[in-house]
Amino acid sequence: MAIRLDDRDPDFESRFSAFLTTKREVSDDVDQAVRAIIDDVRARGDAALVDFTRRFDRFEVTAAGLAITPDEVDAAVAAVPEETMDALKVARDRIESHHVRQRPADDRYTDALGVELGSKWTAVEAAGLYVPGGTASYPSSVLMNAVPAKVAGVDRVVMVVPTPDGKLNPLVLAAARLAGVDEIYRIGGAQAVAALAYGTETIRPVAKIVGPGNAYVAAAKRRVFGTVGIDMIAGPSEVLVIADKDNDPDWIAADLLAQAEHDTAAQSILMTDDAALADAVEAAVERQLARLPRGETAAASWRDYGAILLVSDLAGAMPLSDRIAPEHLELAVADPEVLLAKVRNAGAVFLGGHTPEVIGDYVGGSNHVLPTARSARFSSGLSVLDFMKRTSILKCSADALRVLGPSAIALAKAEGLDAHARSVAIRLNL
Amino acid sequence: MAIRLDDRDPDFESRFSAFLTTKREVSDDVDQAVRAIIDDVRARGDAALVDFTRRFDRFEVTAAGLAITPDEVDAAVAAVPEETMDALKVARDRIESHHVRQRPADDRYTDALGVELGSKWTAVEAAGLYVPGGTASYPSSVLMNAVPAKVAGVDRVVMVVPTPDGKLNPLVLAAARLAGVDEIYRIGGAQAVAALAYGTETIRPVAKIVGPGNAYVAAAKRRVFGTVGIDMIAGPSEVLVIADKDNDPDWIAADLLAQAEHDTAAQSILMTDDAALADAVEAAVERQLARLPRGETAAASWRDYGAILLVSDLAGAMPLSDRIAPEHLELAVADPEVLLAKVRNAGAVFLGGHTPEVIGDYVGGSNHVLPTARSARFSSGLSVLDFMKRTSILKCSADALRVLGPSAIALAKAEGLDAHARSVAIRLNL
Repeated sequence: MAIRLDDRDPDFESRFSAFLTTKREVSDDVDQAVRAIIDDVRARGDAALVDFTRRFDRFEVTAAGLAITPDEVDAAVAAVPEETMDALKVARDRIESHHVRQRPADDRYTDALGVELGSKWTAVEAAGLYVPGGTASYPSSVLMNAVPAKVAGVDRVVMVVPTPDGKLNPLVLAAARLAGVDEIYRIGGAQAVAALAYGTETIRPVAKIVGPGNAYVAAAKRRVFGTVGIDMIAGPSEVLVIADKDNDPDWIAADLLAQAEHDTAAQSILMTDDAALADAVEAAVERQLARLPRGETAAASWRDYGAILLVSDLAGAMPLSDRIAPEHLELAVADPEVLLAKVRNAGAVFLGGHTPEVIGDYVGGSNHVLPTARSARFSSGLSVLDFMKRTSILKCSADALRVLGPSAIALAKAEGLDAHARSVAIRLNL
Repeated sequence: MAIRLDDRDPDFESRFSAFLTTKREVSDDVDQAVRAIIDDVRARGDAALVDFTRRFDRFEVTAAGLAITPDEVDAAVAAVPEETMDALKVARDRIESHHVRQRPADDRYTDALGVELGSKWTAVEAAGLYVPGGTASYPSSVLMNAVPAKVAGVDRVVMVVPTPDGKLNPLVLAAARLAGVDEIYRIGGAQAVAALAYGTETIRPVAKIVGPGNAYVAAAKRRVFGTVGIDMIAGPSEVLVIADKDNDPDWIAADLLAQAEHDTAAQSILMTDDAALADAVEAAVERQLARLPRGETAAASWRDYGAILLVSDLAGAMPLSDRIAPEHLELAVADPEVLLAKVRNAGAVFLGGHTPEVIGDYVGGSNHVLPTARSARFSSGLSVLDFMKRTSILKCSADALRVLGPSAIALAKAEGLDAHARSVAIRLNL
């Protein structure tokens, strides 16, 4: 049973604050173990990868066998049912079309003083994509990470995926093929992150590492940050559904459970101004839970982290939504645009009753790699920009330098940097 | 004396590779100390800040006195010479004009299936700006960090700056005033980062922390990453000057020394196809060093990390520049545009003989917070985008959902996520 808060209750603010700061993850302190693994991969390269794979993934592999071959990918593609393959293609094409619009434009202009300024965007040369093994190994995530990299123009997209007991996941390999992934290695964990960051005899290093993973992967990404770029540290998934009275409780319940089935630490929240709808949704959740294959996971998530927020006025309650800063925000209301205009912190917004969040997970076209755990306050979903970087451009003529130079000299002197001042003054014969 | 490499030497590749991986910083392992400081600030708030300030900055302050008051800022502004104040204003205005162009545009469109997609950009609500104390406390950096935040639309720009022995730096406070900084606190180190990330009784938390700092500050930023956003971990500054024979050796030497005077770990590199110019620059460096107030620092930097790369063909050697991925790249050649077109990895490029890098430090208008230590391979200089985040928008009509739904259901089932499939199917009566 989810908790229920009502913004008319006198203790609402303190309970809501406490709710916001509830931690949903046990943060294992795996940092020392991860450090040792990274050091070992840096020291011994492929040999360390072979050893860790034997130990953690329980199969024998040689350095020469670390790469998953095109033949293996062919076989995987052949094993995927046609209907699934077609759906993956729909997803791939839609993700590509949407992300092409995110390509940034270069800028170059001359200002009033005659100074030329500009920005030039270029793609990262090589990007690593971490794909988890086991139950969280999703082909849709392969598309969501690899397609934007390719749209950005990344030359080498390198995927790593652990294959516990040596078993390949055909769906993941088929998605990699469709997305244009260039190299695939059967490694995972902190050792795979280390290999991507520092390289081994077999694996050339990349400049950026993206993709979700467990606590070891997250700690390894945090540790190699600076040597390479990383994306967000992903936490458990979450949805906030804001619904007015005119909703089918079964639809809303289905959306809450779609989130809850991911993980016992996932979080589903309903915010409504209608107590009757809240009751009906709660009842529908219980009914649907009984029939779900992943019902146990979903039930635990709903019981431990689910919430119903009763508010007196939906538009007036949007600051609560911003404080939650949800990864996914459904606006199941008559006029979602009115609420959308008030949204500041959210990873992705789904408008109206016919846009379940699940569409965004697969085939909407927008990215499903989104900021979790309130990080939408300061970060965005994965995009083409994550695989590009901007070089700024400056060009002064002799005349422009004559105009600007004295201010630069004044500031350099004020900061006690005489060589700075000199590098301008010498050009002006000052 | 800088090292000299020649791309016609048989051992060039191995020497260049070794040069690339030379570490310029001692990375003190301060992580345990930083962890304890952060925990203490989280537990005791202002009281911990007061204690750490007494211990590290050697002065007494009360919780009520942590904020630097508008009166103190008024007094600082009054103490700054008019010429310096005018130069700061020139810098502020030019930074603002350039950064306004970086504001991203929202996007909203309907695709062929009738699905509405979009992106909405919003500013981070509150940003923290770390300003170092002591010799690296630069008013220009205050402008470079705070102005883009304000241009982005950040509501609260909160500056922290340690004031060793209680002494304020008038220039830094004047720059903060000009940039529109909203709150200033006299704290520094890991304790200031913790206060910005988690808040105390006096200091409300922010969502993003930017700005350079020492090893403690860097470790603290790395540790709070995820709770808040952070910018890059800044390393020592560096410049690569690419020069053809038609250059005044004294100008080039002055530019190399402007970088070298920052820090003994700074790095200045000259790449040229003209051995005579290389010799002349080297002689000019020695001559100028003798006259520099910060000559000792610059000499150590040039001796330990300076380099001259002699290459047979400048355009052909641009891949070496990309491997260096310099923070600053000067193209002091007859036709810099030809080389610029080949640049992939660089923080900022300065074109032609009349654009010393120092112009970009102060009054060019572009940002001087740039990726160091080869991180231009995957990251960009500070920009307005660092203070904004993107929310993606998706809206399906009932018709569009009917078209897209089956693909989403197929993928959800392939991934074993039945509740996902159900949240779409229930709307289609499937």
